[in-house]
Amino acid sequence: MKVQLENVKPMDIEKRSFEIITEELGDKKLIPGTELIVKRCIHTSADFDYADNLCFSQDAVKKAITAIKEGACIVTDTKMAMAGINKRVLSRYGGEVFCFMSDEDVAAAAKANATTRATASMDKAASLNRKLIFAIGNAPTALVRLYELIQDKKLRPELIIGVPVGFVNVVQSKELIMETDVPYIVAKGRKGGSNIAACICNALLYMIDNDRGY
Amino acid sequence: MKVQLENVKPMDIEKRSFEIITEELGDKKLIPGTELIVKRCIHTSADFDYADNLCFSQDAVKKAITAIKEGACIVTDTKMAMAGINKRVLSRYGGEVFCFMSDEDVAAAAKANATTRATASMDKAASLNRKLIFAIGNAPTALVRLYELIQDKKLRPELIIGVPVGFVNVVQSKELIMETDVPYIVAKGRKGGSNIAACICNALLYMIDNDRGY
Repeated sequence: MKVQLENVKPMDIEKRSFEIITEELGDKKLIPGTELIVKRCIHTSADFDYADNLCFSQDAVKKAITAIKEGACIVTDTKMAMAGINKRVLSRYGGEVFCFMSDEDVAAAAKANATTRATASMDKAASLNRKLIFAIGNAPTALVRLYELIQDKKLRPELIIGVPVGFVNVVQSKELIMETDVPYIVAKGRKGGSNIAACICNALLYMIDNDRGY
Repeated sequence: MKVQLENVKPMDIEKRSFEIITEELGDKKLIPGTELIVKRCIHTSADFDYADNLCFSQDAVKKAITAIKEGACIVTDTKMAMAGINKRVLSRYGGEVFCFMSDEDVAAAAKANATTRATASMDKAASLNRKLIFAIGNAPTALVRLYELIQDKKLRPELIIGVPVGFVNVVQSKELIMETDVPYIVAKGRKGGSNIAACICNALLYMIDNDRGY
């Protein structure tokens, strides 16, 4: 084996990773209270762009944590994000994770209205009588529909994590969410993803536990 | 609504995204036969670094496609990657997706041997009597264990998709895989992720179908 491996115990790998990230961020200014979210996004992607592109509405983190403690549920637009969210920790506060993308009624509504399934699944979420955090890592059309539902006063999310990734209407859909008065965490620009959506949820959950606070 | 949305039909969003990616890649040289994989990684991450960091062993794509057609199964190191892989298309050729990370015997073995669960789950995979493709998007320790199993002639994968993300032994673990004579697709450097692992699997599956070949 020509390659030299660093000797780090399994339980210390994440801690060591965060040390490296902190070191490489150097004197980069982050918004106080958002550091653990920014660092976890970098940890998930190895992409330091997240130190620049993450935007937080006023007190978004504080409001999100309050909502989770009060039993807020998380709605995602992919099974991947759903798989990545720490459901064990969320359930401790009474919350669940929902993804309606594969539901038959959602597929039928999307077909009938010639929309994406993501759009239809936001409509389904709006009918839930629960406190909701939206974690959107894939579909800009989900953010556009959330914007419309908020404007029409049919929905009032506790937080929108707006981090779809891609090239068609992704930038615009994020700008729309930042026009609302709903708390948001948005990755400005094209970047994001289901992994980023899940990791922001987990960062919030770990902040409540004061666990993994490197 | 101050923001101007581009008018693209739901079914055309992916096609339009690939057009934009192709346009922005310009005259960037990609290895013939790997273009659809590189572009799908960029599509999944909005990160053009994948045009530079993806490394393919000789005929890796061709060999992977043959293996899938012969019923190869995919082993992942996260539930997220598992959730992202198109299991419907894979099953058409007889393949399944496995992720052993949450299995009780894997947790017990990891504890007993003071390894990561990822290490223990590679050992479990090596005991399967199936053609295997490994899609590793998270744990460098999985790649290190694969290297050892290959050296010890206990495992002969059809392909290793080596795209863990992160800061501790990630770069090194990928270099190890590139030292073997096993077919590989590796994202050199720190970048990768469960999303990238899943998307490379899907790119291969769509190439077989000659579907979504933008």
